[in-house]
Amino acid sequence: MLELWELGGRGNCRFSTFSWRTRLALHHKGLEFAVHPVSVSDKAAISFSGQDKVPILKHGDRVISDSWAITLYLEQAFPDRPTLFGGAVGETLTHVFNVWTDRELIPALIPYFMRDVLDCVNDADAVHLRSQIENALKQSLEQLAAGRDEALSAFRRKLQPIRKALEKKSFLGGAAPTYADYILFGLLQWSRVTSTTPVLAPADAIAAWFERMLDLYGGVGRNELPRAERMEEAAA
Amino acid sequence: MLELWELGGRGNCRFSTFSWRTRLALHHKGLEFAVHPVSVSDKAAISFSGQDKVPILKHGDRVISDSWAITLYLEQAFPDRPTLFGGAVGETLTHVFNVWTDRELIPALIPYFMRDVLDCVNDADAVHLRSQIENALKQSLEQLAAGRDEALSAFRRKLQPIRKALEKKSFLGGAAPTYADYILFGLLQWSRVTSTTPVLAPADAIAAWFERMLDLYGGVGRNELPRAERMEEAAA
Repeated sequence: MLELWELGGRGNCRFSTFSWRTRLALHHKGLEFAVHPVSVSDKAAISFSGQDKVPILKHGDRVISDSWAITLYLEQAFPDRPTLFGGAVGETLTHVFNVWTDRELIPALIPYFMRDVLDCVNDADAVHLRSQIENALKQSLEQLAAGRDEALSAFRRKLQPIRKALEKKSFLGGAAPTYADYILFGLLQWSRVTSTTPVLAPADAIAAWFERMLDLYGGVGRNELPRAERMEEAAA
Repeated sequence: MLELWELGGRGNCRFSTFSWRTRLALHHKGLEFAVHPVSVSDKAAISFSGQDKVPILKHGDRVISDSWAITLYLEQAFPDRPTLFGGAVGETLTHVFNVWTDRELIPALIPYFMRDVLDCVNDADAVHLRSQIENALKQSLEQLAAGRDEALSAFRRKLQPIRKALEKKSFLGGAAPTYADYILFGLLQWSRVTSTTPVLAPADAIAAWFERMLDLYGGVGRNELPRAERMEEAAA
């Protein structure tokens, strides 16, 4: 029995960049799992894990937090299922890619779009997220949002190594997706679910790749509505 | 018959970051090869290749330039020799790593150390390299060198994703080196051969990895003297 705790927002939307990594990793392994949405500020719901962040995976008696630790666990616990790394080289370079995404790509994008996220979470979470980011960056979310165009250009430039690879291959895994694809997907899915501003230019090779990613595993990514469509549904 | 054209400097030293990638790739494949050093400004020596940069590999009638193209060629031409990528995931992520190194790591380090390189090449090359960098960056090499300490801190921060991986594994390939290791090695070997300023802090996990890299293939990296020792030899 596998259970996943992940962030849930208004209208039951799922926007967590880290939880999307884990979700797709579970699908990649072909595993069935139950999902428990928790709000950002509801720390009581996940106190059983001994820490305060999602995603959290429970497998029988084992409780694993941190998306990278979960991935290593899944690869080791289910060795007969499709590999998430494609071998030793892939595992180490995926680790590099994971840390690079967390240190370079996320800070280059997320703060500038965080204002949009407030509309997608409950009131307590909106207060929590605002104070978390504003305290860390010493700017208001509105100030950060004002720098969005410039941030977007810088973010797109940072993606150039990925773009070059995806101009040659269908996925970062080559012909098929691998965990590195899920890492990048998580970030772009976060912005798709929380914002109406497109992060990629339509002609970008990464935009074409993202469409392929949305279709994986019965369209689990695409079935999560983008923000514009979710707002229409709520208004209808 | 395999032949490699690469940059050669004063005292026959070999400092090219790109050529070191190719050299170690050839050793990785267990291939014998002849080496032809060429100076930076001697374009006539490599005009046979139809372009003006080294490394260049000649294999029978085939002439391949560009270190990444050479790597892809070696992997395809010698499939029964040890793999440079460790599979499809490794190949694509190594491509990402290669472009990231060229776009992020090299510009973060090389301009600030380029003043040191002038002492390691012949007079014509020194004039050529100075004008190339100063025209591109609109600063003198002396101005760039003055920002070296700050550049070094930024460069070390950029290495953090690699550092995290090398705190867990012996090489970017895991237990054994892979082409991604040679990409990073090329950059650090460039600075070791041309400068007396250490790029890494001694306690850095990457510094320990670099020592392992210097020992590979009969110590081909270590046999290339660091700048300080080369100067002592020349003075003795």
